[in-house]
This record gives sequence, structure tokens and C-alpha cells, in this order.
Amino acid sequence: MTMKDITEGDIQNNIPLATKDPSNRTIVKFGDVAIGGDKFVVIAGPCAVENRDQVIDIAENVKKSGAQVLRGGAFKPLTFPYQNEKSFELGEEGLKYLAEAREATGMPVVTEVMDPRTVEMVASYADVLQIGARNMQNFPLLAEVGRSGKPVLLKRHFGCSLRDWLGASEHILVQGNPNVVLCERGVSTAHTHAGTSRFIIDIQVVPAVREYSHLPIIVDPSHATFKRSYVPAISKAAMAVGADGIILDVHPVPEQAAVDPLQALSYPVFGQLMEELRAIGQAVGRPI
Amino acid sequence: MTMKDITEGDIQNNIPLATKDPSNRTIVKFGDVAIGGDKFVVIAGPCAVENRDQVIDIAENVKKSGAQVLRGGAFKPLTFPYQNEKSFELGEEGLKYLAEAREATGMPVVTEVMDPRTVEMVASYADVLQIGARNMQNFPLLAEVGRSGKPVLLKRHFGCSLRDWLGASEHILVQGNPNVVLCERGVSTAHTHAGTSRFIIDIQVVPAVREYSHLPIIVDPSHATFKRSYVPAISKAAMAVGADGIILDVHPVPEQAAVDPLQALSYPVFGQLMEELRAIGQAVGRPI
Amino acid sequence: MTMKDITEGDIQNNIPLATKDPSNRTIVKFGDVAIGGDKFVVIAGPCAVENRDQVIDIAENVKKSGAQVLRGGAFKPLTFPYQNEKSFELGEEGLKYLAEAREATGMPVVTEVMDPRTVEMVASYADVLQIGARNMQNFPLLAEVGRSGKPVLLKRHFGCSLRDWLGASEHILVQGNPNVVLCERGVSTAHTHAGTSRFIIDIQVVPAVREYSHLPIIVDPSHATFKRSYVPAISKAAMAVGADGIILDVHPVPEQAAVDPLQALSYPVFGQLMEELRAIGQAVGRPI
Amino acid sequence: MTMKDITEGDIQNNIPLATKDPSNRTIVKFGDVAIGGDKFVVIAGPCAVENRDQVIDIAENVKKSGAQVLRGGAFKPLTFPYQNEKSFELGEEGLKYLAEAREATGMPVVTEVMDPRTVEMVASYADVLQIGARNMQNFPLLAEVGRSGKPVLLKRHFGCSLRDWLGASEHILVQGNPNVVLCERGVSTAHTHAGTSRFIIDIQVVPAVREYSHLPIIVDPSHATFKRSYVPAISKAAMAVGADGIILDVHPVPEQAAVDPLQALSYPVFGQLMEELRAIGQAVGRPI
Repeated sequence: MTMKDITEGDIQNNIPLATKDPSNRTIVKFGDVAIGGDKFVVIAGPCAVENRDQVIDIAENVKKSGAQVLRGGAFKPLTFPYQNEKSFELGEEGLKYLAEAREATGMPVVTEVMDPRTVEMVASYADVLQIGARNMQNFPLLAEVGRSGKPVLLKRHFGCSLRDWLGASEHILVQGNPNVVLCERGVSTAHTHAGTSRFIIDIQVVPAVREYSHLPIIVDPSHATFKRSYVPAISKAAMAVGADGIILDVHPVPEQAAVDPLQALSYPVFGQLMEELRAIGQAVGRPI
Repeated sequence: MTMKDITEGDIQNNIPLATKDPSNRTIVKFGDVAIGGDKFVVIAGPCAVENRDQVIDIAENVKKSGAQVLRGGAFKPLTFPYQNEKSFELGEEGLKYLAEAREATGMPVVTEVMDPRTVEMVASYADVLQIGARNMQNFPLLAEVGRSGKPVLLKRHFGCSLRDWLGASEHILVQGNPNVVLCERGVSTAHTHAGTSRFIIDIQVVPAVREYSHLPIIVDPSHATFKRSYVPAISKAAMAVGADGIILDVHPVPEQAAVDPLQALSYPVFGQLMEELRAIGQAVGRPI
Repeated sequence: MTMKDITEGDIQNNIPLATKDPSNRTIVKFGDVAIGGDKFVVIAGPCAVENRDQVIDIAENVKKSGAQVLRGGAFKPLTFPYQNEKSFELGEEGLKYLAEAREATGMPVVTEVMDPRTVEMVASYADVLQIGARNMQNFPLLAEVGRSGKPVLLKRHFGCSLRDWLGASEHILVQGNPNVVLCERGVSTAHTHAGTSRFIIDIQVVPAVREYSHLPIIVDPSHATFKRSYVPAISKAAMAVGADGIILDVHPVPEQAAVDPLQALSYPVFGQLMEELRAIGQAVGRPI
Repeated sequence: MTMKDITEGDIQNNIPLATKDPSNRTIVKFGDVAIGGDKFVVIAGPCAVENRDQVIDIAENVKKSGAQVLRGGAFKPLTFPYQNEKSFELGEEGLKYLAEAREATGMPVVTEVMDPRTVEMVASYADVLQIGARNMQNFPLLAEVGRSGKPVLLKRHFGCSLRDWLGASEHILVQGNPNVVLCERGVSTAHTHAGTSRFIIDIQVVPAVREYSHLPIIVDPSHATFKRSYVPAISKAAMAVGADGIILDVHPVPEQAAVDPLQALSYPVFGQLMEELRAIGQAVGRPI
């Protein structure tokens, strides 16, 4: 589906846009990157932007290992509004560092936006706007990112169904913005592995999305598992199951990450994982 | 907990406000109503405000049967953004009808707000601001309703834990607004009764909230069950389990309700239910 | 539905027996007790039978407060097969104590059976055979209790749907045994209240069972909540929602119970709860 | 862990056997097959044994494509006890056909046992005894298969946690039988993809099992997805995530399978999948 595929008529006639003609798959392009195309796309970077040097160092390192897109959060939704955690929400300052990291490396940047009133500002720095899981059904926000014209990375809420998720994507598409990338980041279940992880990855949603929708889908092993040692295994599963890419937390000293220190990969572990992904990519005909 | 109980020191020291001294229970007062006090509070009205006459007629009827607060939606988050459903989102016009119904009956009004940019406008009509389940973790919105000074009805997301919910309430409390009413409206489970209901009510969260928090808690049997015939039974359970009130969809011709026609009660069924609740209220020492 | 209502023809024609004519409700009778009739039935006793004196003392005490049936486990399925827990599985010896307690008080006895090879033996002591949650879909066991002719208390598995549960009841009914009582004892969810409870009660399954099946349904607040302080609230909700009875753990010194010491009620708390239930029973027209 | 690793002392001292020394991994051997060793093991065959010719034909075909073990059900637990479904439960006759298929192909046989009274009989035909999901916590049955000395394939219940599952394995291990293979076959969630699948595969349990237990783990994509078109993707994910093998339903004419006709693979699709798995196996260093 390309821009021209969403017609005024479709919207006026309430044709469901997310599920129209699933076999004619959408490719979301920005910079030199194409999500949903022949290549498996790796997005990597810090959970939260902590300072200028950190984000540039990470960007250079993940690029060297083969990442194509830089991730980093400048606005972070936190379950509890405590100041000590909040101090790592750099806001617009963080966005500037991300833009500098793009300048330095050539990598496009994906970053989260939480508030409809800041979409325009965030969009002035970002290449891709991320909607976090908790805002998946924040409909005024979805309408704004839809109108922004920027590609959107739409994370799935940990307690929502595929139907809810496609309904949320529809709120973006209906604004005339066809560039939506779905991102699975784990679902809550009654059977979560106590003491090991908050969520479990729903890897099966990848073939389910392929059956019902033309939108590309990537997987977030870091936030799904909340556990560093499980991330490589889930990343490889994501490629083998047919996802269009992954998004990973990487940090020079993972234990010292300001947010979510349990899940980030170090540079060497990320580099090793990229090697293994390249081998699987060859086996399944989906190079990185 | 009263306004003075949240001190600047508490906030600066990150004292969790929602769970501070649970036995000293908060009573949220507006108009003649007190939620969390000696009386069980019944909130009733249409799911969506459809027109002026409808909302006034419903208000008069539910008041006659003993409801103390009028509910009605002028902004409705819908899973899919289809026009035919949206046509019943009256927006500010709906809020004016609600204000007229308040004028006619004396009942205070609770209505949903979805967008931080419209909080001030909605607050100019409403007595209580409702945060819908999908926006439970929409933190910029929570901050705005916190700053509005109005009482807030915070619905629980169907896929969120008690911890997530109390964390969300904290985002309101931390703005210096102590008037938060929690509202349980059903959780999604793997064991939902296929063909009968989308969610199941988590009645057990009522004693759990009592144990961990001082905030009052009410139950929404209409949206939890999505099924008219289950609503009276769940309403009675809510009273018996110790909830501080319920919120119900009522409609003159339920089958013709513009939104969620399967769950609204007719006037006679609502009236009959109120009789039964009065009897149970006497038995448990919690009159309506 | 009475015995004669399950005809040979129904069984040969695969008429679903559990859902045949829901409005013609089954009443399960044993001793002087009728579950599903005009009265709300309270079953009480120790989780595990610990010794002769304990079970007789408990039986006498719960009877004094108004319980109609004695519960007590002589065979206990435990998640891990550790000896220190197992030592309180008295087996046939425990059944003899239960029979003595019945002798002493006149109360009929419900007790669990886990193995198809011991159904006959357990049935020689018990008035009602209990199938535990973990054995809900143990089909050879269901067939044996079906053939035993004894009334069966069929607990719902914490991870199974209403459809699974009614399917399990069908395995008993199809043997020509119509005396099945369903028992809700909590479902696992992703939203369980961490630190407070393992399961949440699915109170909404009571009206759902009423809609789809003629079988009586009771609720087990002790095992659903795993928490003493929540048990009275859930018991009252069970009566208000329209259940046909409850089953409760009671122990003279709850903290010292051999199995599940967190959930049993003491004699005074049980007595107080019975008073409150009597009052609600009058309000809802369902005396104890 | 080998037989000698479970000492009498361990059992008497209640040392948890399933979680003892996870890095010293158990390899379960039978015939020429070793699950948990260097090779990825593929188990394939019909869901239910339908007749002699069918099972031999399937055995020969799956062997040709590289399967190492034959699966087939002669005893089938069914949610509802309807005769038309039951007619494909061949019982001992089906076991004889499986034995003939082993004779013809040299492949060892895994088949389900449901009743403690038939363990000895089933064990006289089978190489590996399968415990179905619904019987995961059928403790008398687990004790019997533990005593049988045969390797056991222990499926995870769709509503049980990792802790429940390891507890169940302990009931087998404690009998002195160390040859337990865990099998993940999907969990129920609130977010199951309506209209597409009953369960979702919990692929993340594979690294979780590796962390906590030494037992080998395989994945059942057929029963997890209940959908033919998702099976290849999940099978590849299972290999990439590090499982020790998979178990698949294969049928000459899948649409006509007596049980679960939506999920079985045809011979050509199975053959094609095996080619792809071989390529991934090379990439990840785990040949078939």
C-alpha cells in the first residue's frame, strides 16, 4: 500500500485501511531504510537518552555492528511519577542530541512522543515517531502523528488484542498517513515467568499480522523480556518467524543505564548477536 | 486524606501518595455527593449523549429511582475510527446538554475527557472528569486533570494491574489534586465467557484497593459485562463486596442506544435494581 | 433436571446435557441438603484433615454457626511433591475421621478424590465427591465419579474457560449422573494483585452459568483469594450475585493450618460472617 | 543429569530435582535419538491414529523428510465427550499400528497416556509416554509414568506457569525417572488472535527453562497455533530460540484428519519446512 492506495473514497466509505489487501504489503521508507522490504532492519540505541556523548557513542557503535536506525527516548512514560526516575527525561534537549547523533552517523532516528501538543516539535527532530504501548489507544495522539506525515512506530499495548492494535493503526491511517510500522513488545499473561520477566513475547502475532494486514511488523525483545540474557534468543526467533526487523536497547555499561538497566545489551553482546542474525538471515533469505 | 494531607514535602520526597495511610480513607465530595462516605453512590445515565431531550429524560428518570450523579459521554474513544459510530460523539454540544440536565435535576455530572487540550473546556461543564480505561496511562492527560482541581474518576485499563492503576492515580495526586475515585470496569482474561462478555469484573480488586490505598473505589457493571442481563447481579455483588458505588448505563430504549446497545438498562429494570440495592444496603449497613 | 431427564436417547444423540434447558434448574440433594434450591448452602471445614479431634471440633463449631455441609481434604494435590507438605495427606485415615465427624454432627461430607482407582473407596465414606481444579479435565477420573452415582462438586480450573468447564461436567453427566455442582475458585490473570492473591474470583461466571446451564454453582472464596482478610467480602459478593452457596476453609488456629494457612477463617470470624450472610440472604430472598 | 544424579538422598531431603544444576543439561535418549543433545529433533505424525495404513504411510513419509520420531494418538482427551469425535480413539488397536509403523521405519514412537491404570499397557508399545496438557497436574498419573521407567514428554498446560510445570516434572523425577522432556504447546491469553488461534506460543519459556532447569524442552507449533499456515513460521522460531526439537501434526490429506484438521501439515509442506529448518540449523549450529 502506498500513499495513493488510501483514497478519499476509502476513508469516506469506512473501508478498513489496515486490513485492505494484506498480500500487497506496505514498505515504510525513510532515509536509506525500508521496513517491510527485502532486508531485516535492526534499530538500536539507549532506552533513554542520558547525555550528548552517550548517545553519539552508542550510535557509532551500533552502526559499526550493522544497525540501520538509532533509537533513544527523550520522553519516557513511567508507571509512577517519581522525580528520581524522571530526571532522565531530557525532553527537547535529548532530541537535539539524537539529531546530532544522526548528523554524526547518517542513521535516521526513532523516538517516542507522548503528548499531542508536542508532536510537531518532536517531529522536527525525529525521522520516525514512536507511540509507546501505554498510548496505543490515545486517539488524539494517534490523530496528530497521523497528520504529521512522519512514519509512525506503533507499539502494541501489553494488554491489547490484535484487533485493538489494528484499530489503533486505523486511527493513524485514516489521517492519510500510510507509513505505520507495528511493533510487538510483549503481552502480559497469567503465566509470566515469575522472577524472570514481566511480559512474554507474542511471536505468533507476526504470522497473524501477515495474514490480516499489509503493515510491516517488528519485534522489541528488550522490553518484552526485561531480561538481558533472553534478548539474543528472542531476537533470533523474531527473524526466523518472519518479522521485518527488531528494536533493541544497547548501552555501553548496561548495569548503569538510567532506565531499564536489566535489559540493555553491551556492545560486544550486540555485535555477537548481529553476527548470528546475519547467518540466520542468509538461511531464511532475509539479509540485514 | 484531604487536600492538606498531600504536603509539598510528600511530593518532593516521592512519598507514594496513593498508598499513604490506607486506613484514613479519602472521601471525594462534589455537590451534595460524597463518594467514599457512609452512603453507596449510584451514578447513572446514557453511555453516549445523543440529544438534548434524551439526556434530560434519562436524568429525570434515574434521579426518580435514586441515582445521585448523572453520567454521559460527549467524547467517546472507539477502537476503530469509523464515521457511523463517530456521529454520536457530540463534543461540546453534548456537554451543554449535560449541563442543562444538571440544571433540571440538580444532579452533578461526570463525563469523559480524552485530550489534554480540552481538559479546561470539559471541566467548565463537568463536576467530575472521567478518564477512560484506554487513557489510564496517558500521563500528560492525567497531569492536566490533576491540575484542573476537579474530582477525577479514573477507570482501570482492562489489561493493567493494581500497581499500574495506583501508579496512574499517583500522576493525578502528585499535581496536588487528592480527589481521585477509582473505577473497576472489567479485565480481559483468557477465560472470558465466549459469546457472553468481553471482560470479566475483577470484584476482588475492591478489598485489595481497601488494603493498599485510601482512595474510594466504584464498579462499572455495564462496561465490565457488556451484557444487560448480567448487570443487576454484578451491581449487587459490587455493593456486597464493599465498593463505594456503581456507575451504570441507562437508556429509555436500550436496544436503540447509539453506543453499546447491549448493556444499558431500561428505566423499569433500573428502578427494580435500585429497590434490591436498597434492601442489600440496609443489610450491609450502607444505604443508598 | 432429574435423573430421568437424561435419557438414553439424549446420550446416544450427543445432546449436550449440561446446557439442555437452562431454565429448568437442577437441584442436587444429599442428606437434608439441597444445592440449587431455595436456600443458600454453606460448606465449611479444614483445608486438610489433620487429625481426629481437629476435624470433629471444626465440624461442631461450623455447624453451630449454621454451616450445612462439612468439607475436608484427605487427598491433597500439591504443586511440588515435597514430603513435609505431604505428611498432611492422611488418605483413608482422614476419610474415617470425616465419617466420624458426620456421625457426631449429622452434617454430610464433601472430600476430594484424585485417582480413578480410589473413587470407590472414597465414595464409601463421602457424601459428595470433589474434583479439584487441577483434575477438571482428568477424563478417566470424571468418568469414574460419574459412574459412582455420588453427587460431584466440580471445581473450575484456574486457567479454563466456561466452555471447558461445561465440557468437563458433560463427562460426568454422560455417565448418567445428573448430580453435578459447579464450583468457581478463581482464575489466573495477568492482573492478579501482586503480593495479595494468586487468583482472582470470576464472580461474573455465576450469571453466565445461569444463562447457559441448569447446573447449580457455588463459589470458593478461600482458594480464590488465598487471603483471609478478603474472604468475607467475596463470600458476601457470592451471595449477592446469586450463587447457590459457598465453600470455606475454617480452622481453630488458622495460622497453624497444615495446608494453606493464609486463607482459613477462625471460628469467631466465620461466625460473624454467617451473621452478615443471613442479613443479606433476607434482603435477596435467599435464606441460609 | 543422568539416572545416577538423582540420589536417594536428594529425594529424602526434598532437593528440587528439576532445578538442580541447570547448566549440567539432561539428554533424554531412546533408540538412536537424543533430545537435548547436539541435534534438533523433529517428531512428526498424525494427531490421532486413524487406521493401520494411514499411520505407516505417514511414518514412511515423515522419515523420508528427516523426522526422527513418530507421534500418534490412540487415546485422545476431548473437551466434550461426544461419540462422533470419540470414534477416532482407537485405544490399544492404535498402539499396535504405531508399533507396526516403528517396525517398518525404525522410528521410535511417542504416544499419549491418560489413565494411571493403562500406563503399563501403553508403555509396552511406546518408546516415550506423552502427558497431555490437561493432565499436566494429574499427580497419580505422573507418579505412574515416573515409575514406568520410560522417557516422558510432559506438555505444559495452557493455563499454567513455569513454576507449575516444573512442579509437575518433579512428580515424575521424584520417582527416580530422570528422562523428562518438557513440551511447550501454547498458553491461553486475553489477547489471543480472535478468529485465528486458540492459544499463543510462549516462545520465551525456552530461555526461561534453560535458566532454571536442566531438562530439555521442545515446542509443539501445531497445537499452539491450531492453524496450518502459522506452523512453519513458529517451527523456525522454535529452532532459532534454542529449543531442542519440535513435534508436528502431519497428515496425507490434512483437511480430512479425524482430529484437529485445521493444523496438520501435508507431506509437501512438511518436506519444504524440513529444508528450511536444515538451513537455519546450519546457521545456528544445531543440525537436524
